[in-house]
Amino acid sequence: MARVLVTGASGFVGRAAVGALRLRGHEVHAVARLEADLLDPSALEPLMRTAAASHLLHLAWTTAHGAFWSDPANLTWSAATLRLFEAFARAGGVRSVLAGSCAQYDWDAADRADETTTPRRPATLYGAAKESTSRLLTVWSSSQGLSHATALLFFPYGPYDKDERLVPSIAHDLLAGRAATVRNGAEVRDFVHVDDCGSALAALVDGDVEGDVNIGTGHGSSIAEVAATVARILGREELLRIDPPRAATTVVAAVERLRDEVGFVPRYDLESGIRQTVEWLSEGGAGSRPATPSAGASR
Amino acid sequence: MARVLVTGASGFVGRAAVGALRLRGHEVHAVARLEADLLDPSALEPLMRTAAASHLLHLAWTTAHGAFWSDPANLTWSAATLRLFEAFARAGGVRSVLAGSCAQYDWDAADRADETTTPRRPATLYGAAKESTSRLLTVWSSSQGLSHATALLFFPYGPYDKDERLVPSIAHDLLAGRAATVRNGAEVRDFVHVDDCGSALAALVDGDVEGDVNIGTGHGSSIAEVAATVARILGREELLRIDPPRAATTVVAAVERLRDEVGFVPRYDLESGIRQTVEWLSEGGAGSRPATPSAGASR
Repeated sequence: MARVLVTGASGFVGRAAVGALRLRGHEVHAVARLEADLLDPSALEPLMRTAAASHLLHLAWTTAHGAFWSDPANLTWSAATLRLFEAFARAGGVRSVLAGSCAQYDWDAADRADETTTPRRPATLYGAAKESTSRLLTVWSSSQGLSHATALLFFPYGPYDKDERLVPSIAHDLLAGRAATVRNGAEVRDFVHVDDCGSALAALVDGDVEGDVNIGTGHGSSIAEVAATVARILGREELLRIDPPRAATTVVAAVERLRDEVGFVPRYDLESGIRQTVEWLSEGGAGSRPATPSAGASR
Repeated sequence: MARVLVTGASGFVGRAAVGALRLRGHEVHAVARLEADLLDPSALEPLMRTAAASHLLHLAWTTAHGAFWSDPANLTWSAATLRLFEAFARAGGVRSVLAGSCAQYDWDAADRADETTTPRRPATLYGAAKESTSRLLTVWSSSQGLSHATALLFFPYGPYDKDERLVPSIAHDLLAGRAATVRNGAEVRDFVHVDDCGSALAALVDGDVEGDVNIGTGHGSSIAEVAATVARILGREELLRIDPPRAATTVVAAVERLRDEVGFVPRYDLESGIRQTVEWLSEGGAGSRPATPSAGASR
């Protein structure tokens, strides 16, 4: 059992990761957005003292839907992340995991993104910031004797996702009897259920695999297929409009490291994962969202 | 004429860059190590107010001889650099130049390092920190409408260099009548006189070239050749011992961007540059080093 400091713990992925870490028997010191301002350097030492954590899972970052791709705050978060890891190392931390992103890859380079061979040529400021930060932390951690991995997250979906994201936005329209229109239907992505994402992160924190590890399922689904699955489960296929396909990219994870080195296999496939999400949404999940249970320090 | 904020102004390269900027008619707000602590976030806004600079030349970094290659402070300086540039942009800055390094290249990949085609695979924490920082600043600057270039410095030498560096250390031994031993004599580097380095930086600040620009001469010289030149100029060749050659790398700049886009051509070749340096050292330059004239805010 370890003491794990989790930042971004009240976020979509953070909530799932905190749950998975606790299932594994770890004590979690969860930092939510409003509790500790990670952008304030003077908040770091007190945080490390209180947390007294041997492990760090750093999920916090600027995440405003859409805007985060080019948000200048990416630079602020990169600098804040370097300071956070320094403070963690000074406080005696031994293992850290950073949430990176599939946006660190060159999306035009390969259909299946491999941690070691696929070129890193991020198309966005967000991707560049994550790539620079993770690359620097990898080299620095090794010089510090700190064990470090960066989790390259593919496309999480599931309960507690933001209303404007793909699955909730289509489900809400269809549940309300409104037509839902899908653009970019031909884009193929590796959609991973957020509970699998959280479990994979917990397994990564728990182990000693270093370097970059993709967090995905290894299977690609088109956006059109995801939308059609939501519509079929809700029995509202007649309300779904799919715009004609345009040029599209395929962004799917190679999962050999995750499966063979971390030892993690996803529980959900697309059908079962979307069914679970749509059922949760149908029961009013997003509408009756409770106060985030994982927010705040707790053990 | 612009107002240029120069960090690291009292350093080896900084002194030369400040002189070159003034020669070009610019007002320089020079920040020396002891004057403003760039690592202290609360010092940045007052600094920007006082400097009121449209241009930024950021040279400050951890530079302890030898140790800086793996100094954990590289992470601190990376974070501090991101904060500095943010503060500069917020204060209305329009153009910035970061001092990068040839250590950002893969030294095994090519004899002539080209800004666009030679792989970046830094072998050291210093190189990784400079590469990550410059890559991130390049993408971020473009998103901010800030004009930005990173100067990839090769191997500056000249007056005011640290005593333990190649040219001064050999010259001091030979001037004192002591034998000087050269190891790694077969390593080929692009040695650039510090005054040329400063002038090139000033030209880069002055222009509008964006992205990475090598600062070198385009000519490689072996360490043995540099040592032999020093010995010959001092007439002490009999005191020079050169260890048998071992496997060595060649690190020489491609200078097309510097010459054709920035419009800069070095003034010194190896012979004239080392002669100037050795004469300065012979006259007691390093021993009678004056208080650094470029330190402190001045215009």
